[in-house]
Amino acid sequence: MAAQDLTMTSLTNDFRKSLRLCAASVSLVTARDETGGWHGMAVTSSGSLSMEPPSMMVAINRTASIHPVILRTGRFALNLMGEDRRDLLERFSRSDMRDQRFASGEWSDAVGGVPALRDALSTHICSVVEHHDFGSHTVFFGAVEDVILSCADSTTSPILWLNGARASVAASITD
Amino acid sequence: MAAQDLTMTSLTNDFRKSLRLCAASVSLVTARDETGGWHGMAVTSSGSLSMEPPSMMVAINRTASIHPVILRTGRFALNLMGEDRRDLLERFSRSDMRDQRFASGEWSDAVGGVPALRDALSTHICSVVEHHDFGSHTVFFGAVEDVILSCADSTTSPILWLNGARASVAASITD
Repeated sequence: MAAQDLTMTSLTNDFRKSLRLCAASVSLVTARDETGGWHGMAVTSSGSLSMEPPSMMVAINRTASIHPVILRTGRFALNLMGEDRRDLLERFSRSDMRDQRFASGEWSDAVGGVPALRDALSTHICSVVEHHDFGSHTVFFGAVEDVILSCADSTTSPILWLNGARASVAASITD
Repeated sequence: MAAQDLTMTSLTNDFRKSLRLCAASVSLVTARDETGGWHGMAVTSSGSLSMEPPSMMVAINRTASIHPVILRTGRFALNLMGEDRRDLLERFSRSDMRDQRFASGEWSDAVGGVPALRDALSTHICSVVEHHDFGSHTVFFGAVEDVILSCADSTTSPILWLNGARASVAASITD
């Protein structure tokens, strides 16, 4: 390998290691294709973009099966997962469980027929305003068309992802 | 108010509420201006953008004092805060403590003189490749030039932000 390649390999390895140290909430990004089929996957790459107007962003790998659906239909939902729905995490993460993704959980049609998880902590229905390809991913900027807030007990915590595994928020701060 | 204004107010209120339900790690975004001055603020709006090439993104309010510095200099660092440096959180969040931000903590010059927190869990030094204005914020896409990994005990957890307050990762998963 050339020296430059070695440097890049080291940087990439350190980058992968560093991302494991960051904790993030898990959301299920969902979309509806033109034939009415539902698509979804678990992501930690979503977050708020702007307060005015209310908008969210999500980075999605261009090889993900939901990617062309969002690109074509211009709409997606972000369902923030609470710990009480951790049973859904595996099936929305493993490609070999793709056909079981919507078999569990209560799903309803939100704006534009996008699937919304009834007991998500929150669901943002977003209309794609801009998208930007960058390297392996596309970042979708979505104007929030609707916010569905959970009716669940407000003590339910979001699922965290940390060090390549599921983690929990501690019940309280000790100092 | 017109009906449309009322709808937007309700959407904005629900959007604000929904964002409080999402937990995120806290990073200090830092930059160096042309005179050598250091700038920094606490954010929860950063995340990985692409694996190839390694790159990060961060959304920054256009009214933030660090915004024009990053725009002009084209470089920023993201210092992922571990719980052992929670003392820095307040001074990097309150505008009236701006002049005390770099008075505590061990800071060193990273690539391009950008300040890196020595005991951050990780520091990403990023060169701005693209930036996109959207509403109240600008999203900066940064190619990672260097990754500094903490030498600290790997059991240190990142600081979380949830429900408008600091939170912690639980020590273990109970099921």
